[in-house]
Amino acid sequence: MSKALCLDMEGVLTPEIWLHVRDRSGIQELNLTTREVKDYRELMDRRVEICARHGLALADIQRYIAELEILPGARDFVDWARERYQVFILSDTFYAFADNFMRQLGRPALFCHDIFQDAGRLRYTLRQENPKQKAVEALRGLNFRVGAVGDSYNDIHMLRAAHTATFFRAPDGIRAEFPEYGNLTEYKDLKIFLSENL
Amino acid sequence: MSKALCLDMEGVLTPEIWLHVRDRSGIQELNLTTREVKDYRELMDRRVEICARHGLALADIQRYIAELEILPGARDFVDWARERYQVFILSDTFYAFADNFMRQLGRPALFCHDIFQDAGRLRYTLRQENPKQKAVEALRGLNFRVGAVGDSYNDIHMLRAAHTATFFRAPDGIRAEFPEYGNLTEYKDLKIFLSENL
Repeated sequence: MSKALCLDMEGVLTPEIWLHVRDRSGIQELNLTTREVKDYRELMDRRVEICARHGLALADIQRYIAELEILPGARDFVDWARERYQVFILSDTFYAFADNFMRQLGRPALFCHDIFQDAGRLRYTLRQENPKQKAVEALRGLNFRVGAVGDSYNDIHMLRAAHTATFFRAPDGIRAEFPEYGNLTEYKDLKIFLSENL
Repeated sequence: MSKALCLDMEGVLTPEIWLHVRDRSGIQELNLTTREVKDYRELMDRRVEICARHGLALADIQRYIAELEILPGARDFVDWARERYQVFILSDTFYAFADNFMRQLGRPALFCHDIFQDAGRLRYTLRQENPKQKAVEALRGLNFRVGAVGDSYNDIHMLRAAHTATFFRAPDGIRAEFPEYGNLTEYKDLKIFLSENL
């Protein structure tokens, strides 16, 4: 059976990018997350507007991201997974943000969005609506058995679409709302879960 | 623009597996290719029957494959491509055959088929019909711009389905039959082609 593993990036394998940009830039308005602004396009529009107002360019953000390391144990986990499954990182981040992390992870396949600097302003394009669910459905259409691992609201449709799924280091609120996915906190337990279920 | 590069494996990045198995096992009947037997399922059924008759098991084939190295320059090319595109190996080989090559290539995503040893006989399952074309179509459905590189008849539907495509080290016959795809023979020229077209 051909098997695919779909992993969220931030929180599961890497730190949260925008929280680090907020800390390093000192722009407290960047505190916004999908908890405050549910619609991702609206959230990104707000972030782009905030960056423009403070003169924060793509190169600045990339410089901050370059300071970050993937989570301890993430590379070992991804290497383990790639010996067993076809691994896909499904993320709502942007290629120009994630490159530092992909290099550290040994460049697994990444499905995310595009962002670029257009004169004084960030511009972004979302590859499609509901991209994580659509990627899982595409892999199912290619007759893969699909596992999914995520930690937040934008992962729910991906977890639902997969054959087997779990939260990993998810906050209390979302775990209480979707208890059916359980929650793991250590890569060693994730390996056991995948070995038994995917 | 999110970009995906779909690469055939044997002939483009690695040596031909069955030709090496023929040479090392001395079983001349394994000389069969898709040139003699157009239908892949029929071809594989013949190969499985030949292996059973000669007592050639999966472990024997894997031992022969373990002697092979990827083509000179293939790892450098794949590393270059993964810094620029999401890379997918689309192959009619089997996961249990390709592992040695995927390790050498740094484990890019691989879409192929399953084979296993069932008592005295090889058993295989094809993941789906026309898998290369369907993978390209799935990636297009996820709004990727798709490039494809292949060298033989089982690549034609993949080349057709992609936004941009080329043969790489294709035999004369197929090049004459499908002159629209051109033919490149060096990875450095493939890099230029992709930089300009994908």
